[in-house]
Parts: sequence; C-alpha cells; structure tokens
Amino acid sequence: MRIALDAMGGDNAPKVNVDGALESIEEFGDVKITLVGDEAVLNKQLQRKSYDAQRLDVVHASQVVEMGEAMAMALRKKKDSSIRVAVGLVKSGKADAVVSAGHSGIAMATALTMLRKAPGVDRPAFATLMPTLTGRFLLIDAGANVDCKPLNLLQFAFMGNAYYKTVFGIPYPRVGLISNGEEDCKGNELTKETFKLLKTSGLNFIGNIEGKDLFSDHADVVVCDGFIGNTVLKTSEGLAETIFKMLKAEITKSFFAKIGYLLMKPAFRNFKKNTDYDEYGGAPLLGINGTCIISHGRSSPKAIKNAIKVANQLAGIDISKLISDNIAQSGMGIIKENEFAEN
Amino acid sequence: MRIALDAMGGDNAPKVNVDGALESIEEFGDVKITLVGDEAVLNKQLQRKSYDAQRLDVVHASQVVEMGEAMAMALRKKKDSSIRVAVGLVKSGKADAVVSAGHSGIAMATALTMLRKAPGVDRPAFATLMPTLTGRFLLIDAGANVDCKPLNLLQFAFMGNAYYKTVFGIPYPRVGLISNGEEDCKGNELTKETFKLLKTSGLNFIGNIEGKDLFSDHADVVVCDGFIGNTVLKTSEGLAETIFKMLKAEITKSFFAKIGYLLMKPAFRNFKKNTDYDEYGGAPLLGINGTCIISHGRSSPKAIKNAIKVANQLAGIDISKLISDNIAQSGMGIIKENEFAEN
Repeated sequence: MRIALDAMGGDNAPKVNVDGALESIEEFGDVKITLVGDEAVLNKQLQRKSYDAQRLDVVHASQVVEMGEAMAMALRKKKDSSIRVAVGLVKSGKADAVVSAGHSGIAMATALTMLRKAPGVDRPAFATLMPTLTGRFLLIDAGANVDCKPLNLLQFAFMGNAYYKTVFGIPYPRVGLISNGEEDCKGNELTKETFKLLKTSGLNFIGNIEGKDLFSDHADVVVCDGFIGNTVLKTSEGLAETIFKMLKAEITKSFFAKIGYLLMKPAFRNFKKNTDYDEYGGAPLLGINGTCIISHGRSSPKAIKNAIKVANQLAGIDISKLISDNIAQSGMGIIKENEFAEN
Repeated sequence: MRIALDAMGGDNAPKVNVDGALESIEEFGDVKITLVGDEAVLNKQLQRKSYDAQRLDVVHASQVVEMGEAMAMALRKKKDSSIRVAVGLVKSGKADAVVSAGHSGIAMATALTMLRKAPGVDRPAFATLMPTLTGRFLLIDAGANVDCKPLNLLQFAFMGNAYYKTVFGIPYPRVGLISNGEEDCKGNELTKETFKLLKTSGLNFIGNIEGKDLFSDHADVVVCDGFIGNTVLKTSEGLAETIFKMLKAEITKSFFAKIGYLLMKPAFRNFKKNTDYDEYGGAPLLGINGTCIISHGRSSPKAIKNAIKVANQLAGIDISKLISDNIAQSGMGIIKENEFAEN
C-alpha cells in the first residue's frame, strides 16, 4: 500500500516522522511512503540516510498547520498545508491511506471535508485500541463527536464491529456500551435509547459495561460518545503515568527498593511494552471514504511506524468499503426511517 | 458527633460494619455510634468484644435492602429497612450523620426523600476524593445525576468548593470542568454552557481540565455530570487494579523480578496506602439536609472506619448549612431567574 505521511505534523516533526517512515519501509516489505511537506527541509532530513528510493518519495507542501492553530483559519487559509496535500493524495488515488500526527481536529476536519463520509455513515468516529489484562479493546468514539444521538452510537458499534472482526479475525466481537452500571436499566438518556437499538441490532451486544470492567476483557468493542471516549482515553493515560511517577517516588526513598527496581526492570519493560501508546500507533478515523490514521502530537518514530502499519493494514482490507457494506447489511435504513417517522 | 451506621448494608455486612464501628470509637475520641439493623444479629456480633457501651448502641430494624434489589420495590415495601431507620435517626435529630455501605442508589434515594434537598440546591451530588501525585482532588458529581443541566453543574461547583475549602482549609480551591480539551472552546453542549456560568461565578475557576491532567494537581475541585463522574471514578479503579495485576503477572515470570518485588514491597505498600480506596472511606451526598456518607459495597472495616471519620468531620462543620449559605451568597438566584427568563 502507498501511505501519504504528513511529515510536518506533530510536536517533533519532521524528524520523528522521517525516522518513523524509514523504519517502516525497513520493517514492512509491502509499504511505500510519500513524505508530504517542505521539500528542502525533508530532503535535508533524508541526506546521508540509506533507503530504497523506489519506496520513499517526497511531495512538496509549502505550509504547515501549527499545533495550537485555530481550526477555521487553518482550514480557510492554508490550502497548501502538508495535511491537506497528504489527504489530497488519497483523494486523487495517488495514495491508499494518510497518516498525520499533527493537530488532530484539523486533520480530522480536512479528511472529512475532502474525502467525505462513507455511504451510510452519519458521523465518522475515532477508534482507539486500548490494552486489557490479556488483550485489547477498541474504544469508539474516542473523541470525534462530543454530542451524539442514539443512531450515531449504533453506527459506531457497526463500524467498530467491522474493524475488529476483520483485523483480529474474530467473527462476533463482544460489543459493550459504556454506562454508569452494568444493569440494563442503567444509563443516561442517550445510552438508554442506544441500549434498545443495540439490543435488536444483530451485533453480539453484551449490554452495559462500567468503567471498572473496561480493562478486564469483558468487551472487544466499547461504544460511547466522543466526550466520554476522550475522557476515558485521557484519564487512563493520565492515571497510568501518575501511578508510575508515584511508584518511582516511593522507590527512590529506599536503597532496597532501588535494588529491587533494578531486578524488576525487565518486568517493568515488558509491562510498558504491553501498554505503550507507541505500540498502537494511532487511531483511525472510521466512516470516511479512505483510510486516515491520526497519531498523538508527541509521537515517537516507533509510534509513526506503527501508525503506518495500521494504515497499511486498514487500507489493505479497504476499511471504508467494509464499513459501508456492514452498515448497508445492518438494516440501519429501517431504523433510520423509524427514527424519522417518530420525530 | 453521633453517627448512625447502617450495619446491614454492604457485601460483608454486618461483620465489617461492626468491626469498623469498633475501630472508630477506639480511634476517634469524639464519636458515638448507633448500629442500625437486626438487634439479635448485631448483639451476637458484639458478643465478647470489649468497648465503651456509652459510645456504641444498637437500634433495631427488621428489614435489609439487598444489593441487587429493585429500587422502587425496596423504597415502597421495606419501611423498616436498616438504611431507612438509620436515615430516620438523622431526621429526628437522634443522630448527626448517617453512613451506609449498602445499595448506593437506594441509600441515596432514601436520604433524599427523607431529609430533602438543602435550601438552594436543585440536585444533590456525590463528592469523592481521588488521589493525585502530591495530594487529592474532589470529583463532583461522582454518580448521583446522569443527565444534568448547566445550572446543576454550577451548583456542584459551589457545593464542592464549600466542602473543599472547609475540610482542607484552602480559601480558594481551584475549580476545573472536565472537558475533551483544555482550550476554552472545547466541550459538549452541556459543558460549554457550564463554562460560561463558571467563568462569572466568582469561584476560582481554572477552566477546562482534560482526563490526563486530573491526577497531576491541576484542580482541587473537578466538576462534571454524574455519568462522566461515575465513568472517571470506575475507569480509574479498574485501570489501577489492572496495572497491578499486569505487573504481578510480569513479576511471576522471573526469579529476579520476584526478589526485586520483595525488596520493593514497602514502596508498593506506601503507594497502595496513598491510593487506597479504604483510606478515603466514602462519598458524601452533598446538598441534602443532613450528613450522609455512602461507602463501597465491598468496604473493609478500615473503609467503614474512615467513612465514619468523614461523617464526623462533615457533621462537625454542618456541611449542609455551609452549602446552602454558600449558594445563597453566590447570586445563584439571579442566574436561575435569567435561565428561566431565557426558556
């Protein structure tokens, strides 16, 4: 697959982006990368690096969207930004997927306006993999839509289901709905209505799932609105970081604990590898015509490389067509008609 | 202060409740406890225990609300339940506060219907302390109200502020609003409106706070609706548990790691103490006429003891009057009038 990489997006661009791209063509035999950004800057980054020029080229973009930039201004004024040019390559069929670690809101808006929603999808959503005790779950929506309707959440469930079953080869992923209790009657207005739709969706819906059960392998696909999803994702990141800082502070207080830590280091390292954001790479924006992976602004080369891996994988299975097909087969049209009839 | 303890509520009642009560009269010189529940059962629990009978008595209640019980049935049919009789002692002035580790929804509903909302409060809320890197923050609402209006969240902020400043002696606690980004413009419909109200509230409002910053001492009082609060609380509990299980699994794989763990054990223990739920004891239901602390169903004797400590402390400062006074002084009446004028 041919991946267009927004080489200028992210806190440490373009260096980590270029390094990640080079690592990925080294590691994944079937990937071709187009670095999109300031040609002079990128060529300088590539100087003295050895790589297969058949599999890595540069496309010029004269502008860069900065991390703190206002959405409206960036979209209107920066017509030659690296993210826009990169998405354009997907639109024109010159690339199969786009990866960006830049301003996530602007990357999302650019992908959405240029590639448009996939047939049957009302609201595209971010899907993020998160580690559990023995595996992982897919959180959808992880932050694209802060205010949702039940039908949106139902579509997220179908989108997540299509992704999960195809990528992990599990025919009937367990779909859970985040709620304030596991009993069927629990929830807010949004989730109670969504619960009813999921119950008759034909998906392997296991019911409500509480925050405390997210990490203990209850569900494969966890559905929520983007406000909740963003809060769950960031709370988890913040808490994990804090737990390790607190432990570290305790360890430095005692000589024996320090020795103990040295002996435990490989165990800590394995644990970190299992839970490391860099291993997951990035979150696809599901439900658009094309494959678009958005990574953390503070991505490392490894995170970029793994985002490229995900992009390669999802473009390979034609994720957007897969999702549209799944939604078309779901009887969603009937649910929608009923919804409109009621209103 | 005189604390009425629902001795029958909780997964391990009445044993842990009685043990916690005994520990608390041992430790806190100014506490008197009334155990509420089946007299015969409780007297049997107290047999062969030595304690000051002036400071611990039993009031009979013939019924118990079970953990899985349906709310409506329990409220209607169990007029002599231990939680109801315990709340009744507060209502009649025979106790200053009530503590329950029973069914939290039913405990809340019972306290709310019998003691009623404090003047100026539209929706009482759960307030939970959570540990941070160097201190703690108060999460409000931690689960009482799943669907909220901006005015409810504003009141939660005042309630949390009154609690925090009085209990921790900090004159202007930093109040943050959970959102999907720290920029002022971020949020969903509910939080964007709430943001405007908080901005002009006179509170020390520091703006939006993301999940990742909750645990790094950005805010003292963290405001959100009860659906979000419950999700944050339970996700944190679940993740912390999972991290330790994952670490443990890694440790058992290697002999050196096991030795390392033994050397690090005191550090782990200190860390656990700082983050242990049992140390915090329970969550007060703020905004009712009286002091009511709801604890985890799986509370240990230490958790019960610490819930009694919190009850004692909050009854001592007359938390419900404090909250009503703070809301009266806040100009909330004017905000409310404007709100009704708009609708």
